[in-house]
Amino acid sequence: MSGFVIRRAERSDWPRCWAIIQPVFAKGDSYPYPGDMAEEDARRMWLEAPLRCYVAEDADGTLLGTYHLKPNQAGRGDHVCNCGYITAQAARGRGVASAMCRHSQEEAKALGFTAMQFNLVVATNTTAVALWRKLGFGIIGTLPGVFRHDQLGEVDAHIMFKRLT
Amino acid sequence: MSGFVIRRAERSDWPRCWAIIQPVFAKGDSYPYPGDMAEEDARRMWLEAPLRCYVAEDADGTLLGTYHLKPNQAGRGDHVCNCGYITAQAARGRGVASAMCRHSQEEAKALGFTAMQFNLVVATNTTAVALWRKLGFGIIGTLPGVFRHDQLGEVDAHIMFKRLT
Repeated sequence: MSGFVIRRAERSDWPRCWAIIQPVFAKGDSYPYPGDMAEEDARRMWLEAPLRCYVAEDADGTLLGTYHLKPNQAGRGDHVCNCGYITAQAARGRGVASAMCRHSQEEAKALGFTAMQFNLVVATNTTAVALWRKLGFGIIGTLPGVFRHDQLGEVDAHIMFKRLT
Repeated sequence: MSGFVIRRAERSDWPRCWAIIQPVFAKGDSYPYPGDMAEEDARRMWLEAPLRCYVAEDADGTLLGTYHLKPNQAGRGDHVCNCGYITAQAARGRGVASAMCRHSQEEAKALGFTAMQFNLVVATNTTAVALWRKLGFGIIGTLPGVFRHDQLGEVDAHIMFKRLT
């Protein structure tokens, strides 16, 4: 985690979070959210609705990434959490996603969650799949053609899961 | 489908839907929603938020079951739908769930969906698992201990999926 910290997001962080998130949604190769998602909807979904939202911040105050954490299901399924992570394009290769995922696992445990589930890991996003595997997540199953990739059309997505205890 | 029809739910159907739904949530063996879920929250989740909500109605006007249909993901995943079905306790064994599932597949196709996904089919709910299999759904994977069963504690749940085209 050389040179950056991970901390809770504040409302004032949103414009810089959106600058990280928006190009990723627009690119259409990893997250299902529409490429033209309204900023207001994105803020609600990413920053406000989840239980927690965090940012990775460089020593000079630059945001390098952001993630959120929430229960994956209501009621009788709320001991399993779900996270979404996005690293700024300019910060790739610095271990930001890895650090955010490790951080999220610690936070999740502290919040009482006993497992973490990713519902839609795009199979062609091999960097992400390999990283989550390295960090202890297994592929529970692969959903055929559930993601409409901007360049490749309908591609598969994995459900990935890790027990935290 | 002897003796009942399936039609779009109307707002005025809600109290009778709730009378079907509430005991199932309270029982805690099939749906993750809290057993003490507020009626207002349940109405929003079951009747209002989904794209469509339907009821199965007997010839004498008795509601036998209800189901809803919605996109399972936003944006680039919104060609896959998700449904939730509940049959009234008193109407079990009449083929209501089967009829609702077949109906939902036709409705989903008419709405342009190309697949249907169930995100949390409780593994101990063997009647449901067998029925969805019979109706063409395959088990994509099994999530360990993700459902806190009222009687059995943490039990597994399946992700089930069917292409509609």
